[in-house]
Amino acid sequence: MKFENVQPGQLLTPTEAMRLAIEEGKKGAGFVSPNPLVGCTIVDRNHRFLAVGYHAQVGQDHAEISAIKKLADPEMLRDSHLYVTLEPCAHQGRTGSCAKAIAPLGVASVTYAVEDPNPLVAGKGADILRAAGVRAVLFSDREDVSEAERTEITAQAEDLAEIFLYFMRSKQVFVGVKVATTLDGKMATTSGESKWITGELAREHTHRTRARYDAIAVGRNTFVADNPSLNVRHRDFPGFQNRVVLFDPEGVTLAELPGSNLVKVRPPESVWALVGKGLKPKNPAGVHVIEIPLNEKGEFEIGDVLARLKLEGLTSLMVEGGSQTYGNFFSSGFVQRLHAYIAPSLLGGRHGVAWSAGFGSGTMAERIRLRRSEREILGEDLYWTARVEFA
Amino acid sequence: MKFENVQPGQLLTPTEAMRLAIEEGKKGAGFVSPNPLVGCTIVDRNHRFLAVGYHAQVGQDHAEISAIKKLADPEMLRDSHLYVTLEPCAHQGRTGSCAKAIAPLGVASVTYAVEDPNPLVAGKGADILRAAGVRAVLFSDREDVSEAERTEITAQAEDLAEIFLYFMRSKQVFVGVKVATTLDGKMATTSGESKWITGELAREHTHRTRARYDAIAVGRNTFVADNPSLNVRHRDFPGFQNRVVLFDPEGVTLAELPGSNLVKVRPPESVWALVGKGLKPKNPAGVHVIEIPLNEKGEFEIGDVLARLKLEGLTSLMVEGGSQTYGNFFSSGFVQRLHAYIAPSLLGGRHGVAWSAGFGSGTMAERIRLRRSEREILGEDLYWTARVEFA
Repeated sequence: MKFENVQPGQLLTPTEAMRLAIEEGKKGAGFVSPNPLVGCTIVDRNHRFLAVGYHAQVGQDHAEISAIKKLADPEMLRDSHLYVTLEPCAHQGRTGSCAKAIAPLGVASVTYAVEDPNPLVAGKGADILRAAGVRAVLFSDREDVSEAERTEITAQAEDLAEIFLYFMRSKQVFVGVKVATTLDGKMATTSGESKWITGELAREHTHRTRARYDAIAVGRNTFVADNPSLNVRHRDFPGFQNRVVLFDPEGVTLAELPGSNLVKVRPPESVWALVGKGLKPKNPAGVHVIEIPLNEKGEFEIGDVLARLKLEGLTSLMVEGGSQTYGNFFSSGFVQRLHAYIAPSLLGGRHGVAWSAGFGSGTMAERIRLRRSEREILGEDLYWTARVEFA
Repeated sequence: MKFENVQPGQLLTPTEAMRLAIEEGKKGAGFVSPNPLVGCTIVDRNHRFLAVGYHAQVGQDHAEISAIKKLADPEMLRDSHLYVTLEPCAHQGRTGSCAKAIAPLGVASVTYAVEDPNPLVAGKGADILRAAGVRAVLFSDREDVSEAERTEITAQAEDLAEIFLYFMRSKQVFVGVKVATTLDGKMATTSGESKWITGELAREHTHRTRARYDAIAVGRNTFVADNPSLNVRHRDFPGFQNRVVLFDPEGVTLAELPGSNLVKVRPPESVWALVGKGLKPKNPAGVHVIEIPLNEKGEFEIGDVLARLKLEGLTSLMVEGGSQTYGNFFSSGFVQRLHAYIAPSLLGGRHGVAWSAGFGSGTMAERIRLRRSEREILGEDLYWTARVEFA
C-alpha cells in the first residue's frame, strides 16, 4: 500500500495503516544512518486517512513529527490514531523526544510495530504516552488484527529498521552481501571477465542499495582486477559520499591506491585500508590505514574486523566481493542480508567463477537459509534479497 | 487475462481476446502431445466476449471447435470474430479440418497468432477461410494493435506451442532441462545429499512440468544415487504414464533396473535404457534397450541420441540430471528451455555440487542467454523458466 494510491479520507484498517507507514518509511533509505527508517500514518477517530510521514534525514524530524506537520490544523489530531513502525522515542537526541511531543496533543492511540530495541529504553516511549492518557499498544498485541497480519507487519517493520535494530540489539556492525550472478551462480569467467553480468536497471539499483550502508567492503583481488569506484551513482543521491573498506591482509595494494578509482571518486580518508598488524605501512595519499591482527592462516578474523569497524563509527557494511571475501564473511557467520542480482544467463562451471566458492557446508542440514525473501524484476534481471540465517 | 475473470458480454480488445486464448490454451498442458497447445476466444460483432475453448486432449476437439460448441446457439457465430493462438488446421487429421469447419459458419474474421509451422501447409488454413469470405489475418499483421502488443502476443503464442513448433520446424526433439538448485547454483552436497533443496510446492510443480514432456531423461549416476521414480504424481494427472530415458553408455546399470523405482512405477517397456553400441546387453525385465554409437570419448553424441529418440516417436524430452548429463546437453547446444526451481538457501562451493559443472564458456560473449523469462513464486522457492539461446 503506497501513499500515492491512498485517497484523503479513505478508510484504513490498522494493518493497512501500518503497511502504508512501512512503505513510507522506506523513502528515507540512504539518508538516515545511524538512525532507523521509520514511517508513520495518522487516521482520524473513524480510521479515515489524514496524513503520512517518514524520517527523511538524520537530524531532522522523526516520522511522527513529519506526519503531524502535514496536517492543516493541529486540531485534526484530536482523538486521532497514530501508526508508527517503531516505538516513539522517549529520549532527547538530535531532535526532541517524540513521545513527549505527542503526549499533550489529544491523540487517542499510538500503535507501534516494533519496541525500542534498547532494553534500557524499551517501553519508555509507550509509558510517557500512557501517562498522558494516550492508548499506546504494540501492533502484535492488538486483538483486532489477525495472527497472520500481526506476523506480516512485525516482520516487515523489523526489516525496515533492520540495520538499526541489529546494531542496537547485538552491538555489532550489520553486514550485507551483494552479488551480481548468472542463474547458475557465476560472477565472472576464469579469465576475469565480469562486465556485465547484469543489465542497466540492476546496476542502477545497486547504487540505491549501496546508499543504505555506511561503507562498502571489497577484497584486494577484486580491487586489483576491476579498479572499482564503489561509490553511489544515482540521481536520488546527488553528491552522496560513501566509505570503502579494502581488505588487504598483506598490504600489497597500498602502492596502487593513490591512482585508483577508489581514491579518485572520494576523499582519501574515506578509503579505509585494512592491513595485517605489524606491517607498519606508509600511509599512501591520505588513505586511512587500519592495522588488524592476522590469524594463523594469515587472514583477518571477521569478528575482529567488525569490532574494529564499529569503533571507527560504522553501523553497517556491504560486502561486494570477490569470492574470497564472500567466503571469509559467510564462513564467519557474520552476514545478515543477501542482495543478489541474478541475470538470465549461464556461464557454466568449466570456466565460470562461483561467487560462493569460498564457503560451504557439508550437509543439507547445515546449509545457509534465506528468510523473508523479497524479489523484484529489474529489466531482464531479478533482484532477490533475504535475511541470512546460519545453521 | 483468465477466463475466470472475464464477464459474459465484456468488451475485449484484440490483444485481450488473444491473451485470454493463450491462457486458456495452457490448460491442455500434459494432455495433447504430439499436438500443440492451442486456445481460442470468440467475440461477437461488437467485440463482446462470447466463449473460449482449448485443445484439451489429443484426438478430441481442437480449440476452435471446443469454443464454438460452448455457444448456446450456432447463430451467435454470425459476424463474430475468432482469436486463435495458432492458424486453424487445413488438413484432415485425427479430427477434421478446423478451417473447413469454420468456413461456412458466418464468422466475420479469424485472427491467429502464429502461422502453421509446416511450410507446406502454412497459410492453407487461412486460404480456406478467405475463399469462404472470412477475413483471416495473422495477429502481427493487424494494424489496430500496437507494435509492443504484436511482439508480446506473438512471443507468448510461440511459447504456448513451442514443443510442437520446434519439432515441426526443425524436425528435432525439443529438449527442456529441469534443475532444483540453491540460489548459488548447487544441486547437492558432495556427500550426495539433495533431499530436499526445494519445498513441497516446487516439487508438486515439477510433476506438472514433467507432464508436458514425452519423456524424462536421467544419467546413470543420478539413477544409482537417488533411485528416482521420475513419474508424474499430481492430482491433475491421475494415472498419467510417462517414459524415462536412462543414459548409460557403459550399460552398467542394467542389472539394477529390474528392482528399481523406474520400473516399479511404470510398464518396463516405458523405460528406455540408452547404452553404447556393441554392448549386446541382455534385456533386463523387459526394459527397452537402445544401442547408440559412442564417440571417441566413450560418450553419446547428443545429436545422435535425439535423432534416435525421434525415430522412437518422441517429440520432447526433459533432462533432470545429473551434472554430467546436464553438461552433455548444454555442451551440445541441444537445449531449448530451462526450468529452474531456485530455493532460498546457499550450499556454497566448498562441498556443494554445481548443477552447471559440466559445461561452460570461456568468455562473457559466449555465455548462454535465457530469453523471455517467466517467474512464479512457489512457497519460498522461485520457479524461473526461459528459452535457452546459445551464442
